Amino acid sequence: MTKYDQYEGFQVDSAKDYTTFTKRKFDTKPFGDYDVEIKIECCGVCSSDIHTIDGGWGERILPLTVGHEIVGKALKVGPKVTKIKAGERVGVGAQSYSCLECRQCRNDNETYCAKQMDTYGSVWPDTGLVTQGGYASHVRTHEHWVFPIPDAIPSALAAPMLCAGITMYSPLVRNGAGPGKKVAVVGLGGLGHFGVLWAKALGAETWVVSRTHAKEADARAMGADGFLATSDGGWNEPHRMTFDLVISTANDFGPGFDLAGYLSLLDVHGKFISAGVPEDSKLEITTPMLIASGCFIGSSHLGSRREMLEMLQLAADNGIKAWVEEVPISAESLSSTVKRLEKNDVRYRFTMVDYDKAFGA
Amino acid sequence: MTKYDQYEGFQVDSAKDYTTFTKRKFDTKPFGDYDVEIKIECCGVCSSDIHTIDGGWGERILPLTVGHEIVGKALKVGPKVTKIKAGERVGVGAQSYSCLECRQCRNDNETYCAKQMDTYGSVWPDTGLVTQGGYASHVRTHEHWVFPIPDAIPSALAAPMLCAGITMYSPLVRNGAGPGKKVAVVGLGGLGHFGVLWAKALGAETWVVSRTHAKEADARAMGADGFLATSDGGWNEPHRMTFDLVISTANDFGPGFDLAGYLSLLDVHGKFISAGVPEDSKLEITTPMLIASGCFIGSSHLGSRREMLEMLQLAADNGIKAWVEEVPISAESLSSTVKRLEKNDVRYRFTMVDYDKAFGA
Repeated sequence: MTKYDQYEGFQVDSAKDYTTFTKRKFDTKPFGDYDVEIKIECCGVCSSDIHTIDGGWGERILPLTVGHEIVGKALKVGPKVTKIKAGERVGVGAQSYSCLECRQCRNDNETYCAKQMDTYGSVWPDTGLVTQGGYASHVRTHEHWVFPIPDAIPSALAAPMLCAGITMYSPLVRNGAGPGKKVAVVGLGGLGHFGVLWAKALGAETWVVSRTHAKEADARAMGADGFLATSDGGWNEPHRMTFDLVISTANDFGPGFDLAGYLSLLDVHGKFISAGVPEDSKLEITTPMLIASGCFIGSSHLGSRREMLEMLQLAADNGIKAWVEEVPISAESLSSTVKRLEKNDVRYRFTMVDYDKAFGA
Repeated sequence: MTKYDQYEGFQVDSAKDYTTFTKRKFDTKPFGDYDVEIKIECCGVCSSDIHTIDGGWGERILPLTVGHEIVGKALKVGPKVTKIKAGERVGVGAQSYSCLECRQCRNDNETYCAKQMDTYGSVWPDTGLVTQGGYASHVRTHEHWVFPIPDAIPSALAAPMLCAGITMYSPLVRNGAGPGKKVAVVGLGGLGHFGVLWAKALGAETWVVSRTHAKEADARAMGADGFLATSDGGWNEPHRMTFDLVISTANDFGPGFDLAGYLSLLDVHGKFISAGVPEDSKLEITTPMLIASGCFIGSSHLGSRREMLEMLQLAADNGIKAWVEEVPISAESLSSTVKRLEKNDVRYRFTMVDYDKAFGA
């Protein structure tokens, strides 16, 4: 017996066996005054899920339900909730807590709060319960991390915006992507495809940098103005110092990752942002690589609530369609979907659907 | 016999014997329409000189006269010169050529021009002559890289501003150092001392980060508002995410270089600028180091003509005094001064003086 409310979800029990999901009940935190209880309708599949359950980002508390691109219906709201109404269709992304009081939180930088907690795998200090993600029947979260989904966006397409989407949107808008600016997106996967969609919607000249030309047609279909394949000799030469912003979505900083080449694209004081977080995330840079253009190397962590709402509205206003493959959720389909994602066998994002069949209506 | 005009200077003949200077005549480029001919009065000693003559920055054409913090008198100016008048006291820094036509040059970014050339060690394409520096009787340079020195600044104190000074001034002003901003200067050497002087003059709250407290009194005397010694346990803890800008002057990225600690000082999207260029200049960074605050790592290359003039005026207007030890120039004194600089036995900059005794009046 447990003193806590329980939800039901698909959990991974061991990093050694991270593609095996087991459906079971788990405890959830007490319903707080600012909490929203959400019946989950669908959830996107994010590389973060894999980095977490395979131990690549470090040892985590298992068993764990991952999934942090959650869309569902607000069943009830706490007495102090003002941002969400019961009955609304809402989303939850990768973050579910920050102090909301520090300087960072007060400046729309709550994703950089020192006390931030992830939607899954974090420990609630008061109860010791571990936060659980969206491959589950329900989720209970503070209203600050619950976002109304505009009617114009189908749930399965909204889901991946809540982590992959915002991960690209925030660095684009914070680094000036817009009319008159030239943006390169390195890597056309789940993150990259949002990079192209957002950068175009924001009005920037948008290029894709990929290993080969295999995805060029897709990139053009998403709206890319230009496409560079690093397997072409001298691929960067005609483009040296012509970009304002390069956002990398690379999931691997191994030999194929041509950092010097990407940096060579940047105009004076241009910025290179690594939006991906490879499991072995070491980047070796030398001062001369930075001096040539006085460029900057940085990263970015999700995006603020304000940015999340802006992004969803931008998608709704512009009819932006994420490229999503829908997969009915089950222990077996989660296993096969994770395996496919590891092989990059996805164009360009998975959303687990049919939650009613798995968890009941 | 040579068809070129000749100057006289102290040259290094071999990277293996880079502390041996030999006085001899060398060819100089033909006097161009935009050139200024300068009789040198004094020249600062820069770590770049050592990195060049010892081969640490790569093999260079020797013999070579180094020295690129030059102050002297404009003896004559070419027929198209408008920026400098004959008879003026002027300075020359580390750069002596750019195309002045490209996008970078047209935007006050001539130090990032792809065709830039250094004051010493570069090859003039038309003649094949190698540019020679300021441990010499004269220098002949395009007016764009010749700067009038305000009367209020003594020559020996102006000299180190022309490389060390501008190397710190440009990243400070380009990254917003001013009232309401908090700036940390890592390392209190020749560069660092200018960092403190400029940051204070620009109105920023200015801190020094050093290995020990040995230089704290000097830092305070230069105007530093705070001082952190990395040998103090937990030195960075109370200061996490409180700085807007950290400028490193480190000449060595070895074990004592606590990059993660320096980055921890930065507030959201703060910038870490490496103004030094160590001979082994590899920086190993990991995405998590960057994600915590969304900070940026960058570098900087000298500063534009406009910035150079602004900096000299700031020094004149504020009575800013560089901390300079004057050394009469000779083959012997250059050798001993280079050796002292290598041991950081300098507070905080050397200027070679008494050129009339070495080269005649």
